Amino acid sequence: MNKITLITVFMTLLATVGCGEVQPPEDKPGKETLESNDTVDVADNGPCRPDLSPLPPSGEGMWPWDGLGDLDEDALKKRGLKVPLEDLWTPGKGGLAGAAVGLRGCSASFVSADGLMITNHHCAFAGIQRNSTPENNLLETGFLASDRSGELDGHGLRAFVFMKQTEITEQILRDMPKGGSDLERIEIIEAREKAAVKECEKKPNTRCRVSRNNDGLGFILLENLELKDVRLVALPPQSLGEFGGEVDNWQWPRHTMDFTFVRAYVDPDGKPAEYSKDNVPYRPEAHFKIGVGGVSPGDLVMVVGTPYRTARYRTLASVRRDLEWYYPTRVNLFTEWIGVMEKVCADFPESCLPTTGMVKSLNNALTNARGMVTGLERADVLEKKAKQEREWQKWVAAEPERAARWGTALDDLTGYMERGDEGRDRDFLIRYILWGNKLMGFARTITKWHSEQLKPDGEREPGFQDRDRDNTLDDLRQAQRSLDPEADRRILAMFLDRLGRLPQSERIATFETALRGDYGEASIKRFVDRLYRGSRLMDVSVREDLFGADMDRLKGSADPAIRLAREMAGELDAYDDRKKARKGAFSRLRPPYIESLVEMRGAAFYPDANASPRISFATVAGYSPRDGVWHTPLTTLSGLLAKVTDEKPFDAPDNVVKAIRDKQLPFADGRLGDVPVCFLSNADTTGGNSGSPALDANGHLVGLNFDRVYENISGDYGYNPRLSRNIMVEIRSVLWYLDAVLDADNILKELGVR
Amino acid sequence: MNKITLITVFMTLLATVGCGEVQPPEDKPGKETLESNDTVDVADNGPCRPDLSPLPPSGEGMWPWDGLGDLDEDALKKRGLKVPLEDLWTPGKGGLAGAAVGLRGCSASFVSADGLMITNHHCAFAGIQRNSTPENNLLETGFLASDRSGELDGHGLRAFVFMKQTEITEQILRDMPKGGSDLERIEIIEAREKAAVKECEKKPNTRCRVSRNNDGLGFILLENLELKDVRLVALPPQSLGEFGGEVDNWQWPRHTMDFTFVRAYVDPDGKPAEYSKDNVPYRPEAHFKIGVGGVSPGDLVMVVGTPYRTARYRTLASVRRDLEWYYPTRVNLFTEWIGVMEKVCADFPESCLPTTGMVKSLNNALTNARGMVTGLERADVLEKKAKQEREWQKWVAAEPERAARWGTALDDLTGYMERGDEGRDRDFLIRYILWGNKLMGFARTITKWHSEQLKPDGEREPGFQDRDRDNTLDDLRQAQRSLDPEADRRILAMFLDRLGRLPQSERIATFETALRGDYGEASIKRFVDRLYRGSRLMDVSVREDLFGADMDRLKGSADPAIRLAREMAGELDAYDDRKKARKGAFSRLRPPYIESLVEMRGAAFYPDANASPRISFATVAGYSPRDGVWHTPLTTLSGLLAKVTDEKPFDAPDNVVKAIRDKQLPFADGRLGDVPVCFLSNADTTGGNSGSPALDANGHLVGLNFDRVYENISGDYGYNPRLSRNIMVEIRSVLWYLDAVLDADNILKELGVR
Repeated sequence: MNKITLITVFMTLLATVGCGEVQPPEDKPGKETLESNDTVDVADNGPCRPDLSPLPPSGEGMWPWDGLGDLDEDALKKRGLKVPLEDLWTPGKGGLAGAAVGLRGCSASFVSADGLMITNHHCAFAGIQRNSTPENNLLETGFLASDRSGELDGHGLRAFVFMKQTEITEQILRDMPKGGSDLERIEIIEAREKAAVKECEKKPNTRCRVSRNNDGLGFILLENLELKDVRLVALPPQSLGEFGGEVDNWQWPRHTMDFTFVRAYVDPDGKPAEYSKDNVPYRPEAHFKIGVGGVSPGDLVMVVGTPYRTARYRTLASVRRDLEWYYPTRVNLFTEWIGVMEKVCADFPESCLPTTGMVKSLNNALTNARGMVTGLERADVLEKKAKQEREWQKWVAAEPERAARWGTALDDLTGYMERGDEGRDRDFLIRYILWGNKLMGFARTITKWHSEQLKPDGEREPGFQDRDRDNTLDDLRQAQRSLDPEADRRILAMFLDRLGRLPQSERIATFETALRGDYGEASIKRFVDRLYRGSRLMDVSVREDLFGADMDRLKGSADPAIRLAREMAGELDAYDDRKKARKGAFSRLRPPYIESLVEMRGAAFYPDANASPRISFATVAGYSPRDGVWHTPLTTLSGLLAKVTDEKPFDAPDNVVKAIRDKQLPFADGRLGDVPVCFLSNADTTGGNSGSPALDANGHLVGLNFDRVYENISGDYGYNPRLSRNIMVEIRSVLWYLDAVLDADNILKELGVR
Repeated sequence: MNKITLITVFMTLLATVGCGEVQPPEDKPGKETLESNDTVDVADNGPCRPDLSPLPPSGEGMWPWDGLGDLDEDALKKRGLKVPLEDLWTPGKGGLAGAAVGLRGCSASFVSADGLMITNHHCAFAGIQRNSTPENNLLETGFLASDRSGELDGHGLRAFVFMKQTEITEQILRDMPKGGSDLERIEIIEAREKAAVKECEKKPNTRCRVSRNNDGLGFILLENLELKDVRLVALPPQSLGEFGGEVDNWQWPRHTMDFTFVRAYVDPDGKPAEYSKDNVPYRPEAHFKIGVGGVSPGDLVMVVGTPYRTARYRTLASVRRDLEWYYPTRVNLFTEWIGVMEKVCADFPESCLPTTGMVKSLNNALTNARGMVTGLERADVLEKKAKQEREWQKWVAAEPERAARWGTALDDLTGYMERGDEGRDRDFLIRYILWGNKLMGFARTITKWHSEQLKPDGEREPGFQDRDRDNTLDDLRQAQRSLDPEADRRILAMFLDRLGRLPQSERIATFETALRGDYGEASIKRFVDRLYRGSRLMDVSVREDLFGADMDRLKGSADPAIRLAREMAGELDAYDDRKKARKGAFSRLRPPYIESLVEMRGAAFYPDANASPRISFATVAGYSPRDGVWHTPLTTLSGLLAKVTDEKPFDAPDNVVKAIRDKQLPFADGRLGDVPVCFLSNADTTGGNSGSPALDANGHLVGLNFDRVYENISGDYGYNPRLSRNIMVEIRSVLWYLDAVLDADNILKELGVR
């Protein structure tokens, strides 16, 4: 890390296109502020809207909690901040932000002293689905526990309470041998990370993880308390929690009430424990009060959570690869895949429920990929990156010291990017076979688990250590609820067909042999039929049994899926190694280049999102998606009502429609004369921010992040002050639903609003 | 008429739904103002947008020119009006408004002392089409006359310069016999109207017409000078003049540059004359200067023109009929019809060009019909009308004098509406057979022309008098350019199939006999084949010949289409009589009801649009089409560029794309940094306002009306201050095109902007 302070402004990478209303960049080297006007503009070259409201203060920056003390607090106070930054989070001491917790790919918030949490409906989806049967489908009915005894086991929902972070860059990178391969390099890094995690997890019920800042510019050890008993408390039916569905996904105006209340339980001694009737509600260190006043346009809001991944500091070659190959390849695969899933649901109605989650993921990823392509193309990002890199080259050449230190940094990266991509189509398919085809996924997990067991714990692959045993077993179990054999067969058939279309040299030898090189429909069908007829891995108890078996018994297993995975192990291990080597290369090549960029700009930066706790300081604000149109920042229940039809995804529940029609509008906004449903801000968010609390200036919870606007999908590659907008549930619609629809006085009381 | 002044405020019919920002109605009886806050709200029950700009001053009212003197000029001055109302138009004296002229279903404007006019591209469409061949297709290339000698004969384009209007209500309605049938009543009215027109047209080159205000509350004799030689001067290709096509039709944001320059010519003595090389440019009394500054949000604009028809004062029964039968029937027919036309264009590419105009009309009417249904339903208009009629009943019953005068007015109207609709499906089909199937249309025109010839001129049906000879013959000729025999056959087959689906009692006996009651595909095909094989009416010289023939020769004609029309004459005459009787009934029943409404409201009214010259005082303003979205009132060339693709209807011409990309932006708006393309105002407009000039506060031309927004389609039934918005070309985009793309210095000079 050395010379780079974590939290300072990074005057980001691409010049703003000409627009009269955009402020010229103020050059304040050394002055730390949240405003970075000369910011990335990757999402649009569209017209300015100077006839409309001026741009709000920029919301750019996903700032690590541990560095809040370095921010310009006065500037934030001028923007309205009331709660002292040190109350939000102080390293070693904690603070209010700690009420925001992780929830496997999402964020959530404690909202009572008794462990009540609020998160998105789609973040608790697995838990809701696992509590649903065709006869008692919580996705259709929603749910309200009449009292605490009625709260339902989340079956695998887990919450991670952030305790602290430690910079361990020096410890990871010290005495790194020179001249080794990229694979060797990453294996050393991984071994040191695993050692740090192991040490950290000596504390009971603690889950630790090392976050790499920008592929290895810095290494941060994150320590979380794992709460293992998380129960369903109150939630709307899917028709409200996902109102608008795929039609409205990534869109504004939005009227989705995407929330769910869950509660964390611990054993009677206050220690995390698996679900048990004897458990008691967890008492969090901090919880958010509810901001009953909600938000108004122009208000400061803070979005707290764990954004997953951004790509703000990429090279031209890297963005080109994503734009020209990666996203189009995703669009192509996901489009076909969704078609396969729709067909199986049409053919076998009983296949619909278990596959809902996968279809949602695919649709979401498809829209995301399309939005990336559109956004990156519309912004001429390739051209801008090329220009920027020409400027960088000039800057580096201008001084011998720079040239000596970074002279080859960009060429090295670009060169690697251009030649390091061999077999990418095959590797792309392998990745998604193992994710999408459950049978192959189970077989690989079980066989790899056993082969890794042969190594000492510290030398095993991450994810295959003793610390991962419970989670892995749990995954193998919980998968049962979203398992549909017919869908699974068709997915495998689809992938085999795709493998057959690769050049012969890139195909997977094991399949090639099994199919005797014949990827015709009949041949694939024969192979798949035989595999699924013979394998018993779709049976949860068989998976559990084989997972727990010893290596000899596994070797002796006649299950054709297990045998296939064992035969393929060499090929899949090589795939894993390629992935690792790639990470090794990036850990070697990217940090110096980013270091030079920071130096060139004369200011420091916030690292790319990496699932570590961050906070974004933002403003409630609309935006112009295109010429002639302005998206206003709040929607209302009347607007929801206007969208209601008899058909999915706009079939809001009758009791919701009735309450709106009857003007039962507790928690209505005085000025709107209506209850706000969703709102926009210019917070800097990405995937992983789902469920993130939005706090008002006092640190009270006023919303739940759940999406971004379509024009902001490509914002992962660069914040755009005109288009970077995230979408949140306004807390008053949640309170309205609890009151006017559920009559859930107990929860309203617990939230302190009764 | 009597007690009702033409120009006063009519506090219109339906209460505004609850919305905090809408001003409460100010009750100013006797005070004449343009603001009617308690106005009709038929287009939406959606949410309010109080977080956005307050409503602009209402643009309600299509005010007849002759009554401008009665308006509250001070109020208009406060809104920014600079030009004195008496300069706009003074009865008997004329004024600036006279620069706005009629153009067969459209409006146009004189913009130079040499008869140069600007109108919409779609208003000059027929003239452009008639100048186009597959080899030299002006629709594809656009056109610029290099000098006046290069200006192209418009082939039937005609301009009507408004000279004066005379109220003749007394003359039409005096001594109306009591107790006659509705047919007799309308025939008396028509006879008197014809007499007035005949008297009026004794002046040479004068075309007169009687406009009925609200079916007979008042009768206005309109006198126009007819200019018969109108030539094409400059126009963009269709890809710009109709940029966005059917996709963007009725939509905002809009980037259509829907304009065309034409010029009126007269004979060397200054008298209107048919096209001749010796003709010279017409010198109009008045022409509009160009408002080079264009418009900004909030500006006052005036839209001048001849709106065709509105339905602001309808009863519940009437609106119900339209909503439940008329518009759905149109949607159904037009949808099938468009399919037929698309098929013929796909099967025979040479059929595409001649049928373009019809397809445009059908698409436009289809979207209109759908918008009507959506708008009327969303506004719960039936419920509101019912409530209003209950109030009316109470008001009438409250005083004996009212009860005596109007007691049965509403019941009479409703009763007629409920029983007067027999055979409406058949009559609907007859109407569209004669419009859509050219062969039957020709045959009916020719045969009816001859049978009407047997009567004295004054007793003939309107449209079949001596004064109509030239136009009728011209129509028969000009139709050739949009004639496609294959399309025509398929249209007739479609109608025969539809006739066959009527109850037998409603079918057309002549077809029934010809088909021997067999409406199967084969039978229809045989009939149509025989008809088209035998008829020579698709040949223009045959039509001319038969039109000019004497009755005996016509009777002797063996042309099967002529024979069919003669056989059907009784049925078609009966259809004409039914239409007339209906008008007679309305002329009897509607005026008293409207009179009572006016009395009830304690204020007077502007009559429904009836193709007479009107003016609307409006404000440049955006609107909210739905919750969370605001449509801003100006679009720009950058926005146009962002829509451009390689495919129709977004395939803007290369030279346009290049000029925008190269930032060649003369006439750009300083604040926008771009050239405005289209803009919105809250002017009160409808069909017939196409091509209407928008004038700024000084009376300078700043735009061309060409459309309304989708949410305002149902505005024909009532002005809505939140949703009634019209769409106009901003004059600076026209100037930009002339300059940056066409380099048309001569025209810019003539417009006075060089």
